[in-house]
Amino acid sequence: MTDPAPTRKAGSVGTVTTRHLDLPGPLPLDCGRELRGVRVAYETYGVLAPERDNVVLVCHALSGDAHAAGFAATPPAASTRDGFAAEDRDGGAGKGLGWWDGMIGPGKAFDTDRYFVVATNLLGGCGGTTGPSSLDPETGAPYGPDFPVVTVADMVRAERAFLAALGIERLAAVAGGSLGGMRALEWAIAYPDQVAAIVVIASTHALHPQGVAWNAIAREAIMRDPAWQGGRYQGTGHRPDAGMGVARMVGHITYLSAPALDAKFGRRLQFADDIRHTLTEPEYEVENYLRHQAEAFVRRFDANSYLYISRALTYFDLARQHGGSLAAAFADLTARTLLISFSSDWLYPPAASAEIAEALSALGKPVESHVIDAPYGHDCFLLEEARQTPLIRRFLDRTPTKETA
Amino acid sequence: MTDPAPTRKAGSVGTVTTRHLDLPGPLPLDCGRELRGVRVAYETYGVLAPERDNVVLVCHALSGDAHAAGFAATPPAASTRDGFAAEDRDGGAGKGLGWWDGMIGPGKAFDTDRYFVVATNLLGGCGGTTGPSSLDPETGAPYGPDFPVVTVADMVRAERAFLAALGIERLAAVAGGSLGGMRALEWAIAYPDQVAAIVVIASTHALHPQGVAWNAIAREAIMRDPAWQGGRYQGTGHRPDAGMGVARMVGHITYLSAPALDAKFGRRLQFADDIRHTLTEPEYEVENYLRHQAEAFVRRFDANSYLYISRALTYFDLARQHGGSLAAAFADLTARTLLISFSSDWLYPPAASAEIAEALSALGKPVESHVIDAPYGHDCFLLEEARQTPLIRRFLDRTPTKETA
Repeated sequence: MTDPAPTRKAGSVGTVTTRHLDLPGPLPLDCGRELRGVRVAYETYGVLAPERDNVVLVCHALSGDAHAAGFAATPPAASTRDGFAAEDRDGGAGKGLGWWDGMIGPGKAFDTDRYFVVATNLLGGCGGTTGPSSLDPETGAPYGPDFPVVTVADMVRAERAFLAALGIERLAAVAGGSLGGMRALEWAIAYPDQVAAIVVIASTHALHPQGVAWNAIAREAIMRDPAWQGGRYQGTGHRPDAGMGVARMVGHITYLSAPALDAKFGRRLQFADDIRHTLTEPEYEVENYLRHQAEAFVRRFDANSYLYISRALTYFDLARQHGGSLAAAFADLTARTLLISFSSDWLYPPAASAEIAEALSALGKPVESHVIDAPYGHDCFLLEEARQTPLIRRFLDRTPTKETA
Repeated sequence: MTDPAPTRKAGSVGTVTTRHLDLPGPLPLDCGRELRGVRVAYETYGVLAPERDNVVLVCHALSGDAHAAGFAATPPAASTRDGFAAEDRDGGAGKGLGWWDGMIGPGKAFDTDRYFVVATNLLGGCGGTTGPSSLDPETGAPYGPDFPVVTVADMVRAERAFLAALGIERLAAVAGGSLGGMRALEWAIAYPDQVAAIVVIASTHALHPQGVAWNAIAREAIMRDPAWQGGRYQGTGHRPDAGMGVARMVGHITYLSAPALDAKFGRRLQFADDIRHTLTEPEYEVENYLRHQAEAFVRRFDANSYLYISRALTYFDLARQHGGSLAAAFADLTARTLLISFSSDWLYPPAASAEIAEALSALGKPVESHVIDAPYGHDCFLLEEARQTPLIRRFLDRTPTKETA
């Protein structure tokens, strides 16, 4: 077996341009409708092997996009980092750094010296792939609320059609955190003969009811904003920024752990002398942080995309989709599975990964599961790069096509 | 010592009418302003002893009012139960049952055969006590956002002035859960010679940063609703119901535990056959529950009161208010203290009560602390009546004026 340790200092993939590909055929959807003229935004890092057997598909979470690694050729005004609460951690946003740059590159977890890493923006998103803000080719107007309610399986179907158009039929691995981990699972279940391995980080087979509730509250905040206008806000000069700001605030707090908030902000006042007896102004540092994060997010994200993606990840439920049991869901799966979760993640808790591991083990499927003890909550999947890297490198090294021992 | 067990089946205080009292003088506030013409809504249960030594003041939480026990003489259209997520548990709401009826009455925790129990609506509320929806006597118009930003200490100052007007100078006990527990602590600190005992349930000396954040998000949801109109919505025909609904949804989820949500709703769909691919309609039972709770709440509560009360409980910080330490805050306290917390309460966690107990013990103050192992989260203080009752009865029995052993 190859030594999984990086043989040289991990490097950057450099400056990257997001490209676009139009799917040649219509995309059938779970709801019964189909989408025509679907465009997929994507980036690639590393070199495709002549055998086309070194492809790793990296899947982003709710607020991410196709810019997963390197520096954006045209740095955006606002951050494109997948962000969550990790958005502001290192000033990388201003440089247009990819949302998982710490994990993708030469010598990194997804080593671009070996793998051809592909990242797409998901179906329904607002980062260049067709979504509710795209023009409906049949009307010439933005879809808005007429965009079909897509599922995680639909997103994966779009990714598969996209890869087929690139001439890629098999994946060495599909990897992602949170909603990205759901897509990795869905890939291995829907297309078992095309996926050799999946890396499922801080994810679940079905969001727990509290997570369903948080997502519902975030969507309510957007839809109750009069500026949402039933979803037809494009071109009106008004956007539901107020509501989406609240949605993002809810998200931020669920992505962090209570101890992380203690450590980061405590109960520190913005003005150290005393309280100012104000309702409208942020008084505590954490209040100011929430406002800042909300403002940054509404500049870069589309509210309808938020609604559609939130709904899709809420619907995701492998047992329900497969007759009521995880055993049935995983019956035909052949991919080796790596599960990573984080002790302080209460939105996608380790228990969910344990349930997946248990179901796979009971079926005799190859699965490896790790719980990393770390304090930052769900955001760990973006922050704890150093501790995930050796686990992922070691796991990918055992992929049959790479097996050397 | 008297046997703390009820000697007969616990009963009801019967039908009760909320009364009102106007404070004779102006009320000075922490912000430097003073309020004139303050009215206090209150109810009393039981009989005041000739020695006036059997008074228990019961303090409600964020969304409660003076109707703590018995049946309302005029049942309200919407529930007046303090509610939280417990609101819908027994249909009591329709009968106008007081928010802590299970705890107050003959033979109950706060035994009206022995104690004269007084419940008021807090300063800043919307249940009959002066608050932002009251008329400013100087202008004849509602205060709205011109109402002063009050603190927990201001609320306690109003309660003290109210009791003085009733001729009550000493309290056998002050009791409350959540924000009500904060007031009990504040009473014992501000007026140590007037309080013999405090019962502090599911409360804290300072809300943790995550709780500060949830409260900030709830307030943002209200203030970002255009119908809030800077707080001057009264008389306009528009109220920030949309935003306050979101605030209430956030509240509900923080009042429950994740396991309680699992047990209560799971991931059950509203329509058992399958998902319906809808953004706007509630799909899961928990989504429907949230909408229902939001609708019920906005009918009975004033949005500005929500803002003011949320701000006050966020500000509450005994260490900050007393030079930086709990030891300094508790230095002059003489009341015996009973602390009750609940294992699954993540908004007012047992750790906060433990910090209070530790600080009191270190000063040699009499304190008794219990963590009840129960799954319902913060709502336990409204739901776990049977398990709190013997603890409270036993504790109150040891109040010097009642000591018989």
